[in-house]
Amino acid sequence: MTDRLARQFEFLQEADRLKGILRASPLGDNSRRENSAEHSWHIALYALVLADQAGPGVVIDRVLRMLLLHDLVEIDAGDTPIHGSFDTAAQEARERAAADRIFGLLPPDQATEFRALWDEFEAAQTPDAVFAKSIDRVQPLLQNLASGGGSWIDYDVTMEHIDTRVGSKVRRGAPAVWSYIRARVAPFFSAAR
Amino acid sequence: MTDRLARQFEFLQEADRLKGILRASPLGDNSRRENSAEHSWHIALYALVLADQAGPGVVIDRVLRMLLLHDLVEIDAGDTPIHGSFDTAAQEARERAAADRIFGLLPPDQATEFRALWDEFEAAQTPDAVFAKSIDRVQPLLQNLASGGGSWIDYDVTMEHIDTRVGSKVRRGAPAVWSYIRARVAPFFSAAR
Repeated sequence: MTDRLARQFEFLQEADRLKGILRASPLGDNSRRENSAEHSWHIALYALVLADQAGPGVVIDRVLRMLLLHDLVEIDAGDTPIHGSFDTAAQEARERAAADRIFGLLPPDQATEFRALWDEFEAAQTPDAVFAKSIDRVQPLLQNLASGGGSWIDYDVTMEHIDTRVGSKVRRGAPAVWSYIRARVAPFFSAAR
Repeated sequence: MTDRLARQFEFLQEADRLKGILRASPLGDNSRRENSAEHSWHIALYALVLADQAGPGVVIDRVLRMLLLHDLVEIDAGDTPIHGSFDTAAQEARERAAADRIFGLLPPDQATEFRALWDEFEAAQTPDAVFAKSIDRVQPLLQNLASGGGSWIDYDVTMEHIDTRVGSKVRRGAPAVWSYIRARVAPFFSAAR
């Protein structure tokens, strides 16, 4: 039991480092960039609130678990802004290595369970993972909109980029949310022209 | 549907402000104080990892929901450090008013559901709430220990204080965790004498 608790607390202390990983999106008041730990909390809350938008077969409690775990790999691999350009294969390899190391701190049964949830999220095929990915894509739009542009400005993003890189994923998991959000986001880009 | 989504997103944007509420405890690397949003994520992760320490009748998915919601009232009422001194009745009144306002942003069915979870957490009587409270008390101990003292130093805390104000609550919900943590925390105070 003591060894089990020791491994669990080592993992939990390591997780603390996610609070120091900065994302591209700002807080709504534009005072600073968001970190991946508070982002993870915020999107878990998104999933809880928007649960009635999930498609058939989605178990929200599994989605919450996925979202709580999904960014831990960034402790080693960093955040990859959706509108940035990077070597996808190299980044995926870094993230898999991070998952090996970080989930590997846990007792073996939990390491296996959490890694399976993370793999499921990354594969984005099951209803739970598809909804979780939608939620993860929606929140930065609202952060950028509230803060006056955020990473859209930093990365010179167009509405066409958003439709291609974000809309396609949000629509897949939460179509009514996408219609609602797109109608709020599009005027920002029309006005910026 | 559009009105429902509008209320949901208004709540989710308001929740963003929890990222600006600072707690007494620092990050593990002592680089800055922790905010209540990243704390909420961290303790949800604690609950997930330490689920096997929960007593009979505890439903971890309900605990996760409670922990995701439990600090939202701090947006209006601020954080009250456990080792600080304050007017308990006045603070509780501020927190209830905050719960009225913040959960009241949601569609009525969700406002009722979330408020009931928050009330249950605050009352600390059901098995889920007792475990959630234990977890909420454990995490700052580890933050302080990792960072070299944190709020224990700021508030001139003794091991007796911790036994009284923290230990009693952690032991109630997660007795084996308390034994394990107390053995790690006590040497800090022996050494400081």
